[in-house]
Amino acid sequence: MDELKARILTEGKVLPGNIIKVGSFLNHRIDTALMGRMADEFARHFDISKITKILTIEASGIALAAVCSYKWGIPLLFAKKAKSDNIENGIICCEIYSYTYKKSVKVMVEAELLQSTDNVLIMDDFLANGEAIRGLTNIVKQAGAGLEGIGIAVEKGFQGGGDKFRKAGVDIYSLAVIDSIEDGKINFRD
Amino acid sequence: MDELKARILTEGKVLPGNIIKVGSFLNHRIDTALMGRMADEFARHFDISKITKILTIEASGIALAAVCSYKWGIPLLFAKKAKSDNIENGIICCEIYSYTYKKSVKVMVEAELLQSTDNVLIMDDFLANGEAIRGLTNIVKQAGAGLEGIGIAVEKGFQGGGDKFRKAGVDIYSLAVIDSIEDGKINFRD
Repeated sequence: MDELKARILTEGKVLPGNIIKVGSFLNHRIDTALMGRMADEFARHFDISKITKILTIEASGIALAAVCSYKWGIPLLFAKKAKSDNIENGIICCEIYSYTYKKSVKVMVEAELLQSTDNVLIMDDFLANGEAIRGLTNIVKQAGAGLEGIGIAVEKGFQGGGDKFRKAGVDIYSLAVIDSIEDGKINFRD
Repeated sequence: MDELKARILTEGKVLPGNIIKVGSFLNHRIDTALMGRMADEFARHFDISKITKILTIEASGIALAAVCSYKWGIPLLFAKKAKSDNIENGIICCEIYSYTYKKSVKVMVEAELLQSTDNVLIMDDFLANGEAIRGLTNIVKQAGAGLEGIGIAVEKGFQGGGDKFRKAGVDIYSLAVIDSIEDGKINFRD
């Protein structure tokens, strides 16, 4: 999506460790008008009429998923990070490893909110190694629901997470895929 | 807002400790169509044309604030929970006390994203003792920005947080104020 790539180039900051900061429009201050146009772009790729639920994970994926949910008239569900090890009954839970914080966290959804009759679009603002998305696909599988696809705003292609899902035959669509960063310069995949 | 109160009565669950669960439509699975109508209700109370930024806090306030931001064409900023004690330069930070988890957490925004020229509407899905909102008003004050008001979906009036702001002359508008819970029955303020 050319508009998103242009915003990444003009406003994004590359920090040591190939961390890309896009907090001025994507995941801290949020340009929800841009997100409306991102929703339109996702709707050109995915068959929205087949989706019964959007699933994301707290916190920064929620804004994009909420705008898509509002525009498409499809309910949103976000996986919560479990605050304790006491996981109650009726909870679908999955452990994911955070490379940023070098520890595992549990994420969960209430089972009654995700049914085997659901057909799910997973969405997030960022995809790097793919651990968070792997956790969400695992939750969809545990619920016995269908997975329509995965919609991502910015994929760090060089970390390989997205391509793992592509090789597994999952319909994953990222609006901007960064394939390399050289001397602070961001190169997108064609 | 009658529609929101009706949803709380039909779908809300009262747990021990007067905890009200509305995860089926407000803060876990999210009915963004309802949030669009909540945005319209807020827009009848607040003068939207005076607001330059919506400020909320991760995680569950983001969906409501994102739908309002999209409908009104006003940028959204969400305060992040600091993951470490290392608060960098250029950060506006405030400590808030979580009664749920019985500990203090730091919340922060990047200073360059909240300017003294901004006029802010603070929004959240829930208000109980008001600690999170106090933290957000403190961040607005540190930035030297104006505070237009505070918009809340569900206020637990019996915990007193909202009335503290009203007494201080802040324009706070809650779409549903719960004044008491007796034997599991929810009573709204008129």
